[in-house]
Amino acid sequence: MAIVDKYAPIGVFDSGIGGLTVAREIMRQIPNEKIIYFGDTARTPYGSKSKETVTRFSRQIVRFLQTHDVKAIVVACNTASAYALEELEKEIDIPIIGVVKPGTKAALSATKNGKIGVIATAATIGSQIYTKYIKESAEDDIVYGKACPLFVPLIEEGLWEDPVTDEIARRYLTELIDLDIDTLILGCTHYPLIRKALGRIMGPEVTLVNPAYETAIELKALLGEKGLLNDKAPTLGENQYRFYVSDMADKFKVFANSIIKYGILSAKTVNIEDY
Amino acid sequence: MAIVDKYAPIGVFDSGIGGLTVAREIMRQIPNEKIIYFGDTARTPYGSKSKETVTRFSRQIVRFLQTHDVKAIVVACNTASAYALEELEKEIDIPIIGVVKPGTKAALSATKNGKIGVIATAATIGSQIYTKYIKESAEDDIVYGKACPLFVPLIEEGLWEDPVTDEIARRYLTELIDLDIDTLILGCTHYPLIRKALGRIMGPEVTLVNPAYETAIELKALLGEKGLLNDKAPTLGENQYRFYVSDMADKFKVFANSIIKYGILSAKTVNIEDY
Repeated sequence: MAIVDKYAPIGVFDSGIGGLTVAREIMRQIPNEKIIYFGDTARTPYGSKSKETVTRFSRQIVRFLQTHDVKAIVVACNTASAYALEELEKEIDIPIIGVVKPGTKAALSATKNGKIGVIATAATIGSQIYTKYIKESAEDDIVYGKACPLFVPLIEEGLWEDPVTDEIARRYLTELIDLDIDTLILGCTHYPLIRKALGRIMGPEVTLVNPAYETAIELKALLGEKGLLNDKAPTLGENQYRFYVSDMADKFKVFANSIIKYGILSAKTVNIEDY
Repeated sequence: MAIVDKYAPIGVFDSGIGGLTVAREIMRQIPNEKIIYFGDTARTPYGSKSKETVTRFSRQIVRFLQTHDVKAIVVACNTASAYALEELEKEIDIPIIGVVKPGTKAALSATKNGKIGVIATAATIGSQIYTKYIKESAEDDIVYGKACPLFVPLIEEGLWEDPVTDEIARRYLTELIDLDIDTLILGCTHYPLIRKALGRIMGPEVTLVNPAYETAIELKALLGEKGLLNDKAPTLGENQYRFYVSDMADKFKVFANSIIKYGILSAKTVNIEDY
């Protein structure tokens, strides 16, 4: 481990905007921390792409974040957590966590009947990573995965409360309802934005698990363990949260401001292929 | 102009799979020609990205196609035609055509009342390129553009004939119907795949223009003019059509075989960022 400055920022990245739901939880739960956020808006989405490609893209982003001397990295994207995290862990000497393990942990404490559903991108479902982690802790639990490729475009179009989104959600979720799951992991960082619609369709008996919440808890614990928690409140006028994207910075800013209530003043464009 | 071999292949590229509708038209109309197709499946879609990014990506693809000594290039993507074609034309010394000008030409001969609708990605509509080209030939014609960002994901999910696609199409198209257009340009190479649904909603009075058809005609004329038409029929066993993608070659192959009826045996993966 290199010597790391506890006042350094945390790097958070995603294929685009979804990871903002994770950044938001970190802001809420550890408000002293600085964040450098990167969204790969030039190459988004990741969820329909291969392990090799997602790993190559993620590696470039980690190199970019390290130019900002981050003290830790949060892979705020389920697809990148599923496909790239294991590789990235081997390659860097600062703490790095994803959203899948925290999501698993939350689901394990929520389920009573041991039947857990996971909705996510085609890539995350195909990787079977949630099943693998859940089985490691609870061999007898049953995990049902369902890829929901239309949710991300519907959410990015703003149809969070819309009969079309409800109809598509009903199609995706019916088989999970029939399988009698009592816990549903929102295995893509976009999905908390349609939490209401998902809850309406699954009914009050099913617990919806948002891995973002548990990720922020784990991050806080990890930083605490390593003596890396920032104990200084941000000073007035300090630019505590900085946002970088690989394309369409203005559009990102508008979307980010609809999710995070801190007044995001700017997002800078980076040519990520150079890293 | 460099000395070009008329037996060389034509390069055709798109952000992903949509350009296959253009390749299909070229195969139908000039069956002697060889084609090298490239789909940028690692970075798809282009339609929500910026001019700068789409131009950078397109430039890399042109460099890749030139390593195959193509005699001409077809930009089989409306977004790349709108954003990058003008730049690319300056940079290479072989013929290059896009799909926008041919689409414009077809619309101008179809319209009777001079009211033309264009449906396309947010990028193509934002570029106003169809309006610009139509106004150059027919100053008094009126062009109404409408971005339809959900069509591509719905088509890629296979919902070509589905009440959800009809409902979304109705929302996008109602304002164009109210504006009394008599011609609708399908300004994204995916859209011909939902032509039936679009026709149902627009009604029989509105002509749907598929720029792919006119693009193949223009390509044939252009090659003829330059003495570049291939006059030899392909020999038995020759690999006349070759497909390259930047990711997910197997998935591409399945989709391509559903569109093109030539039995696509293989698609190779290329790391396009290296070009």
